[in-house]
Amino acid sequence: MVEDGFAASLAQRHLVLEGVYNGGMSKRPSVVILGAGFGGLKAAKRLRKAPVDIVLIDRMNHHLFQPLLYQVATATLSPADIAYPVRSALSGQKNTEVRMAEITGIDKVHKRVLYQGGSIEYDFLVAALGSRQSYFGHPEWESFATGLKDLSMATSIRQKILRSFELAEMEPNEQKRREEMTFILVGGGPTGVEMAGAISELATRVIARDFRKIDPKQTRVILMEGGPRLLASFPESLSARAERDLKKLGVEVRTGCVVEKVDAQGVVAKGERIQCPNVFWTAGVTAAPVGKWLGLPVDRSGRVFVDEFLHPQGHPEIFVLGDCASAPDEKGQPLPGLAPVAMQQGDYAGRQILAKLKDKPAKPFRYFDKGNMATIGRSKAVVALGQLRFTGLFAWVTWLAVHLFFLIGFRNRLLVLLQWAWAYIRFQSGARLILPERRTPDSPRPSA
Amino acid sequence: MVEDGFAASLAQRHLVLEGVYNGGMSKRPSVVILGAGFGGLKAAKRLRKAPVDIVLIDRMNHHLFQPLLYQVATATLSPADIAYPVRSALSGQKNTEVRMAEITGIDKVHKRVLYQGGSIEYDFLVAALGSRQSYFGHPEWESFATGLKDLSMATSIRQKILRSFELAEMEPNEQKRREEMTFILVGGGPTGVEMAGAISELATRVIARDFRKIDPKQTRVILMEGGPRLLASFPESLSARAERDLKKLGVEVRTGCVVEKVDAQGVVAKGERIQCPNVFWTAGVTAAPVGKWLGLPVDRSGRVFVDEFLHPQGHPEIFVLGDCASAPDEKGQPLPGLAPVAMQQGDYAGRQILAKLKDKPAKPFRYFDKGNMATIGRSKAVVALGQLRFTGLFAWVTWLAVHLFFLIGFRNRLLVLLQWAWAYIRFQSGARLILPERRTPDSPRPSA
Repeated sequence: MVEDGFAASLAQRHLVLEGVYNGGMSKRPSVVILGAGFGGLKAAKRLRKAPVDIVLIDRMNHHLFQPLLYQVATATLSPADIAYPVRSALSGQKNTEVRMAEITGIDKVHKRVLYQGGSIEYDFLVAALGSRQSYFGHPEWESFATGLKDLSMATSIRQKILRSFELAEMEPNEQKRREEMTFILVGGGPTGVEMAGAISELATRVIARDFRKIDPKQTRVILMEGGPRLLASFPESLSARAERDLKKLGVEVRTGCVVEKVDAQGVVAKGERIQCPNVFWTAGVTAAPVGKWLGLPVDRSGRVFVDEFLHPQGHPEIFVLGDCASAPDEKGQPLPGLAPVAMQQGDYAGRQILAKLKDKPAKPFRYFDKGNMATIGRSKAVVALGQLRFTGLFAWVTWLAVHLFFLIGFRNRLLVLLQWAWAYIRFQSGARLILPERRTPDSPRPSA
Repeated sequence: MVEDGFAASLAQRHLVLEGVYNGGMSKRPSVVILGAGFGGLKAAKRLRKAPVDIVLIDRMNHHLFQPLLYQVATATLSPADIAYPVRSALSGQKNTEVRMAEITGIDKVHKRVLYQGGSIEYDFLVAALGSRQSYFGHPEWESFATGLKDLSMATSIRQKILRSFELAEMEPNEQKRREEMTFILVGGGPTGVEMAGAISELATRVIARDFRKIDPKQTRVILMEGGPRLLASFPESLSARAERDLKKLGVEVRTGCVVEKVDAQGVVAKGERIQCPNVFWTAGVTAAPVGKWLGLPVDRSGRVFVDEFLHPQGHPEIFVLGDCASAPDEKGQPLPGLAPVAMQQGDYAGRQILAKLKDKPAKPFRYFDKGNMATIGRSKAVVALGQLRFTGLFAWVTWLAVHLFFLIGFRNRLLVLLQWAWAYIRFQSGARLILPERRTPDSPRPSA
């Protein structure tokens, strides 16, 4: 409702506005960046002193530190701890304008990006729109298995988890109480592993003393993975370690377990039905529809094929990067959808645009492997860095340090550090909020 | 939707559960406390070692520190900073059970509280359900003028304010841009004064450098008060000071300005229409319907008349307190709806129940005046404490210290202090989030 009103009024305004922008357009090259994620923001920042006019478009007003989203979903952190206003991140950068709008298409012939209510011409385009949840051809599962890609999804999962314990506390039927206290995670990648560990710790440690009728330690957390092992992108030894660590926390790990159905009653997997109102989707993602807009070939995750300069075929003025690009590594294998990849690619795209402005020759993109890590719980993590493998406490401290370091903004870092310290020392977590029903409907905005 | 499903399933479960609870009921006196606000929580805590069985019922899972709600609405603090899980606050208190449910009535004849899906018998009842927004007989204004009584309302106001600047930035029409940047607050009590100061500072200091097309310093903040002066419950000299301080911040203060109409286009007051999509309601409140449920006389704000022992007439087993009671002070005047009043009354109710259990005689409630304060902006506040009056920096520091001191939980205090320090030093505020549209609908819970 609100969003519709907002989008609609934005739309109307923008159709009018377009003329103004074009009328006053300067002659400097126009760089349009799509997405204020890790890639887009890095690209913008690299161009901060460049003689170009940058417009960064995102449907949100904030940059989101996605790797910690699961901590919002499991009530350790607040949304604002892992989000930073895009405008603030770029407020000192005078060549850059931010527009909050939903992108709807790209007209590659006329070099124009279309967004809800307007369009803008580009000389260079950086497409870094990331990915969204994918339900393997079963979009109807979405309403029963919330994914974890933005802050609303995270707070929705938080509400569901906390409410389930409230319901269980009032539930006289033993069977139903157990169902209420069962949580299924579909997908054993880093997000699934981190969520499973965090829900388990929330139940056994954080809220253990809060209830009178139920024993939160009877909480069941089931992690289902279709493939043969957890953390498929990690070395096998670390997958095994993660599984062992999770089992120590009481998580039921089911590998080779393909989900056949998700509905209001729960999940059917390997022929078995598990009754459970709390199913969360941590499995596949699909790229933003950049390939569709550009009319270019994509891989099966919807990622645009790009060359070693991050250009889609025949478009040296376009860079596609991060989760929405299939970019080759040195062996020709596609690079994984990780934050460090997107950040390095964003920085590279910025540098390439600078080089092109100076007619310097292009150097191919090379990913500098920053390793791969996942946290499992208190003092438990796995880290793969080149040939190195860390586990246990040392891996966990590494994970903490790296995530804090890359978290945008000093303020957020400090706050997150404090909340982690608090959670660690006191087994308390800070954001256990079930938000009230909206009692005041938003006023419809007068159109135009 | 979600809430309906939740309430419905709670209801069904509870009807079944009721029998179980009663079957296993112990013989200790039952104390039922309605509301986990300042009064209810204090009452529960005072009875922590008493030989009674306490059930605390609230529709929310958290205690809310209402005096700082305006800081969530103006993007300085996050919801979790001013909320604390009720279960955590009482987790060590073994004689107390918490139920999250909406109260629907009181059967005073059978000494029974009815809530959505169940009921519970009491020997002693403490009703401390606070107040809600009142629109002076114009409930239709609610959809155009969000109030500020819970966290959802606060985040809704935050979204509206931040979105308005986004819309203004893209708005080519000068007139419409100015409207987008106009904010009207209806009601010049402490909340209105604090909101006006905070919106003004947000615009002129925090986000001033974030935009390219608009100048946030052109923001108009209009504070309308029907009465002759702001802060009617304060000494006159402080009202004057608050008005002067607000004007220095650029706020347009209009006293004696009765609002005649609120609609989608804005406000009509004193015959003048002001076009503005951002109208916030900081005027009257009405008490929770405790009086209606009890069938007892109420004052014009809906507050139950109670005697100097906080009992409604003829009910020595019932205490009504805080915003939903009209309790006399020493001169027979009703005590104001302030947090310190509710806290002292809650504590008193707990002590009175202890006294009754020991057959000790009752002492009347005496309010120890902790003073009255409101903050206006950076380094500006007004404080009335007995015959003392503070203004300016000293009052502001007093305000900070008092609010921090009473904020529940060490963790929240520390986090809030840090965020205030950050906001003060850097002119940055931390929670400038426009949350994404929900893309994943919540799954309907299987009924029963």
